[in-house]
Amino acid sequence: MTDTDIAGGKLVRTQGVTAPLGYRAAGIAAGIKANGKLDLALVFNEGPDYAAAGVFTRNKVKAAPVLWSQQVLTSGRLRAVILNSGGANACTGPGGFQDTHATAEELAKALSNWGTETGAGEIAVCSTGLIGDRLPMDKLLPGVTEIVHEMAGGLSGGTDAAHAIMTTDTVPKQAAFHHADKWNVGAMAKGAGMLAPSLATMLVVVTTDAAATPQQLDTALRNATRLTFDRLDVDGSCSTNDTVLLLANGASGVTPSQEELDAAVLAVCDDLAAQLMADAEGVTKRVEITVTGAVSEDEALTAARAVARDSLVKTAFFGSDPNWGRVLAAVGIAPIELDPDRVTVSFNGNPVCVNGTGAPGAREVDLSGPDIAVLVELGLGEGTATVRTTDLSHGYVEENSAYSS
Amino acid sequence: MTDTDIAGGKLVRTQGVTAPLGYRAAGIAAGIKANGKLDLALVFNEGPDYAAAGVFTRNKVKAAPVLWSQQVLTSGRLRAVILNSGGANACTGPGGFQDTHATAEELAKALSNWGTETGAGEIAVCSTGLIGDRLPMDKLLPGVTEIVHEMAGGLSGGTDAAHAIMTTDTVPKQAAFHHADKWNVGAMAKGAGMLAPSLATMLVVVTTDAAATPQQLDTALRNATRLTFDRLDVDGSCSTNDTVLLLANGASGVTPSQEELDAAVLAVCDDLAAQLMADAEGVTKRVEITVTGAVSEDEALTAARAVARDSLVKTAFFGSDPNWGRVLAAVGIAPIELDPDRVTVSFNGNPVCVNGTGAPGAREVDLSGPDIAVLVELGLGEGTATVRTTDLSHGYVEENSAYSS
Repeated sequence: MTDTDIAGGKLVRTQGVTAPLGYRAAGIAAGIKANGKLDLALVFNEGPDYAAAGVFTRNKVKAAPVLWSQQVLTSGRLRAVILNSGGANACTGPGGFQDTHATAEELAKALSNWGTETGAGEIAVCSTGLIGDRLPMDKLLPGVTEIVHEMAGGLSGGTDAAHAIMTTDTVPKQAAFHHADKWNVGAMAKGAGMLAPSLATMLVVVTTDAAATPQQLDTALRNATRLTFDRLDVDGSCSTNDTVLLLANGASGVTPSQEELDAAVLAVCDDLAAQLMADAEGVTKRVEITVTGAVSEDEALTAARAVARDSLVKTAFFGSDPNWGRVLAAVGIAPIELDPDRVTVSFNGNPVCVNGTGAPGAREVDLSGPDIAVLVELGLGEGTATVRTTDLSHGYVEENSAYSS
Repeated sequence: MTDTDIAGGKLVRTQGVTAPLGYRAAGIAAGIKANGKLDLALVFNEGPDYAAAGVFTRNKVKAAPVLWSQQVLTSGRLRAVILNSGGANACTGPGGFQDTHATAEELAKALSNWGTETGAGEIAVCSTGLIGDRLPMDKLLPGVTEIVHEMAGGLSGGTDAAHAIMTTDTVPKQAAFHHADKWNVGAMAKGAGMLAPSLATMLVVVTTDAAATPQQLDTALRNATRLTFDRLDVDGSCSTNDTVLLLANGASGVTPSQEELDAAVLAVCDDLAAQLMADAEGVTKRVEITVTGAVSEDEALTAARAVARDSLVKTAFFGSDPNWGRVLAAVGIAPIELDPDRVTVSFNGNPVCVNGTGAPGAREVDLSGPDIAVLVELGLGEGTATVRTTDLSHGYVEENSAYSS
């Protein structure tokens, strides 16, 4: 992707969380992953402000780091985020929560020793990996001290951090937005499977050098996640660890309006969501399901999600098969207002079903390319929504049938 | 399977719809399928009674034969059922409905010519196959006359009929129940994919020589489908054509109690549901998800279905991987009352998660066999339910990525 002009600025993918002023980051191999790859990341906010907001998984089974970070975020203030791959620290009981707490305490101590007085209550913790195993704290805790030294040495650790949070991701995901008025937003994300209804399974850290209150950040972040990560549905599975954080330090000296902040955060999150879709487990097709003409936006979203989650639709797309009847069957079971005789469907702009009946040439529509745009027109109202998904491929089955073993 | 003693009688799989007295059936190759296989089936009730009940798909997009048969069933009376494979006649517009109507008229004429005065309004029509194409009526209509002649020649066409309704099924599915009091129930079913929430994608015809009113049949059929086909969920997809019919002719002279009828119909449907699971597209594992301790049966069913539909759980089972964290993640996103710290999970009787935390040895549980029983204990109440499903395999992807083309 080349740079994109958007929302009064420019969007790039070559930089991440350290693109804004006043942030440092690092990524190291602490030995949490058995294969020796990078597995520990740190994002550090140098100030002067420490405003922050977070959005977390809606799964009732929440990992220890989610429970911890939710509690920390009630203050609306964050100095640092420490993230590990190689283990989700979910379903690990009280011992797992103590491990998260100990990680935050260790980082607070290391940062304080480095000269930045920090409390554990100013530190968010994120984990990703297999559910159910305790983290190797004998590796993790020394890694926390090491990564502070690493970060201290330079300002360019954003890309290392983006690498260190990867699990089955094949590429790191970063995006940065440079506003014409000299303030910036940067972000990194991970997530390749268990991507679903409310927040893809993923960790996202967004930084900005704009000045903003925690409440403004919360508004911008909820607006952005609702329209981007919440509408990315690879396999209908929703993780125990999903976390999206937004930090603002005011280092640019600029205080954008709420609308400007919303637009910038949305632009960065939207780009990351597209990157997550493109790198989803086993993906061979990038699929966008758009539903229009529903009686409300909520119903449009429900219908789009029903199609996006339908295994028969997804396997057909893997086979480049314009089997539009499966789209109708999926829409028909969605709990929405529907008149089957008004439904019109097109694939990549080619009508395949008009008013509930097959269109001439529908079986010959060419879906062999990597992108499939599905448009479902319900013809009832003004509600519109788009969900990003992927096909269901042999690669998905392969990757997910051999993940923990 | 050997004969099973159950509900005051005996269950066998060697007979189907012609097991009860007073039914004839046939299956022929009418040329609807391009490959020349059997594709047209007839079940004919010789009387003396013609009581009947039906349960149909909850999909809002209903195939023409579903709309027709629902209308016919309002009379509580059926003389015959004509079923075709090789085309669903769904999303085919007014022309498709006229094709269904013409099929019933043609059969009424052929049966009347054979000496049994019959009206089109006493005939149910079922279709299965690809959605969206019109049926080849130039083949189907002559087939209707031919199949009446075929049926006239003998009493043993039940197995041919069971073959003729197959699509991606690899084996015909039949079951019969012989009550000790000399009345009988017989049935056939098809369905291998698009098996989901409310009725698997399937056609089922159940016959009995017991005497019963349409209302009694309706009660027995709704009770049975609720507990069997409605709890079979292979891929979360719900068809446009699902139809389950129950016919009673009183030929045995026996009038069982409602309880006896309920038990017999349930036994036959339960056995057919097990057969459908075992022959589902791409199946390598037969999986039963049981949830206990929910606050209600509805919530237990919701939780069991959430696990049964989770692609990550299903791919793990394909890999014989005891990845119990995915079960917890799936339960955690179900819209039910849940205390994550009370959830206990076992695989084939081996505890893998106790009170929300991994059990020792959980990663070593052997799931290499063809049957996997998952027990999820929520510890909150008395609600219990079981859902049958399968793994998500390469075979499933292969079969469904190449179905229409």
